[in-house]
Amino acid sequence: MRIGIDVGGTKTESVALDDRGVVVARDERPTGFGLAEVVATVHVALASLMRQVGARDARPASIGIGVPGLVDRRTGTVLHAVNLGIDEFALGGELARRLGVPVTVENDVNAAAVGSYRALVRDGLSGLSSLAFLNVGTGLAAGIVVDGTLLSGSNGTAGEIGHIPVLTGGPRCRCGQSGCLEAVASGYAVATRWPSSAEHPLLDLFRASRQGDPLAERIASDLVDGIAAAIRMLVVAFDVERVIVGGGLTKVGPELWHSIRRKLDSWASESPFLDALDVPRRVVFGAPIAAVAAVGAAFLQESS
Amino acid sequence: MRIGIDVGGTKTESVALDDRGVVVARDERPTGFGLAEVVATVHVALASLMRQVGARDARPASIGIGVPGLVDRRTGTVLHAVNLGIDEFALGGELARRLGVPVTVENDVNAAAVGSYRALVRDGLSGLSSLAFLNVGTGLAAGIVVDGTLLSGSNGTAGEIGHIPVLTGGPRCRCGQSGCLEAVASGYAVATRWPSSAEHPLLDLFRASRQGDPLAERIASDLVDGIAAAIRMLVVAFDVERVIVGGGLTKVGPELWHSIRRKLDSWASESPFLDALDVPRRVVFGAPIAAVAAVGAAFLQESS
Repeated sequence: MRIGIDVGGTKTESVALDDRGVVVARDERPTGFGLAEVVATVHVALASLMRQVGARDARPASIGIGVPGLVDRRTGTVLHAVNLGIDEFALGGELARRLGVPVTVENDVNAAAVGSYRALVRDGLSGLSSLAFLNVGTGLAAGIVVDGTLLSGSNGTAGEIGHIPVLTGGPRCRCGQSGCLEAVASGYAVATRWPSSAEHPLLDLFRASRQGDPLAERIASDLVDGIAAAIRMLVVAFDVERVIVGGGLTKVGPELWHSIRRKLDSWASESPFLDALDVPRRVVFGAPIAAVAAVGAAFLQESS
Repeated sequence: MRIGIDVGGTKTESVALDDRGVVVARDERPTGFGLAEVVATVHVALASLMRQVGARDARPASIGIGVPGLVDRRTGTVLHAVNLGIDEFALGGELARRLGVPVTVENDVNAAAVGSYRALVRDGLSGLSSLAFLNVGTGLAAGIVVDGTLLSGSNGTAGEIGHIPVLTGGPRCRCGQSGCLEAVASGYAVATRWPSSAEHPLLDLFRASRQGDPLAERIASDLVDGIAAAIRMLVVAFDVERVIVGGGLTKVGPELWHSIRRKLDSWASESPFLDALDVPRRVVFGAPIAAVAAVGAAFLQESS
């Protein structure tokens, strides 16, 4: 049995997989803040999974953990999407020491990419060569899987396309540049450009845009263009067979995907090059399975 | 012995490598036009290499061939940088049939990426994890090598970043989009935006820019920004350890690299994120060896 745990900013999702890779237990609970609390959350989640599978005292073969915005030690890149109040590297060491089990810690978007790959291969796409998981949540980033293996890059930051500028003269990004994908197409972008006390700021933005508010129209249009540009970039640069578009912002319903799809179609109608790449056909909107990052985390050891 | 051949639009460069990967013979000659002429060029080059190594009647173990802008059959992507007047797929089959030797045909930029990787590893960078070869010639494109293996993508088009738009409202690209990297940072961009009968149109552009011509200043500035943006994109998206910047436009001398370097430094001074990625340190300006695509072509069989 192997365990995958997705430690998010607000909740922690955990799964236990049997030897065939089938999910046999699930757990979901709020994430504590700080190293001790996060370790405690993981412990309680583990106990819950073990209880569900009737193996309370057994040890899993391996544990994989997805965390937001893992920092690269060498470059010191510190752009957390969500702050857990911990050193994520310490988390892996601490858990491995306490549990006596190999623990792999990885960025949660990369874990979601691995989970999506496993899910699509399971669903019959056995010849799937590659995919990107594009996460549009608080931040914007992608994880890339090629032939079943995570593309990590030389410092572990491959796929961090959120900080590639795409809109000349666009809004300032928290990374210091301007017009980055993340500065126009993310929860962060909506929060800074369209401050709102509504429960769903993105839906509030879309509503105002539909009602003709010119600022809302521009921000919504930048958002749709930005996600479409991120998809195009992943297809053109990496030539991935599939782009899975997931993350919090994609949960607002089909309206967003319809707008992105119209934009991709409009670009293709102007460019034989893009048309030949058949970008929309490669897109899967929404994660293919529940708790995709947790499932992917369970496969991290054999995917890197 | 293995053979690598770089069939360019105007000249064909060929090398023979011994079993240790050392270049033991070289050949350079004009490329013929059309399939029969290209096959003949390759035959004569082969005979010359064999004569040089004193093995006129021996057969090489393998032959690798780099060609400009290999077309993907499935997508029909047809953006040739240079037209050889042939179906490059037919070339490989024809040569393999005639010579009774395995022939691998690959895009020349990808071949240059493999050649650069081999050269850097040979030079002592044995732990080199990954690199991109950014070709700034008539067109703009990149080849990516990760752990010694070419990143091909699902249709063989990975690394074709030339058709990612980076300049909002920028000039129309031959691919149908606007503001693409190739539309601002390539020989094609210079030829269409700064028509000139000078022997070196790029030097003519730089001269006019230095003399204060406002149009030349903008075009030159777009070119420098575009190459810098391509380098940044390769580092951010792929997290490659090195970016080799090669191709015809890089042969004008150090002025171009100094301008690109200033631009990268200026971006890093505004962005802690970019600063941490240490982009300029990753750049090698100019191919690390002569006939880099021909040398890479000789290693294609074991790099894909």
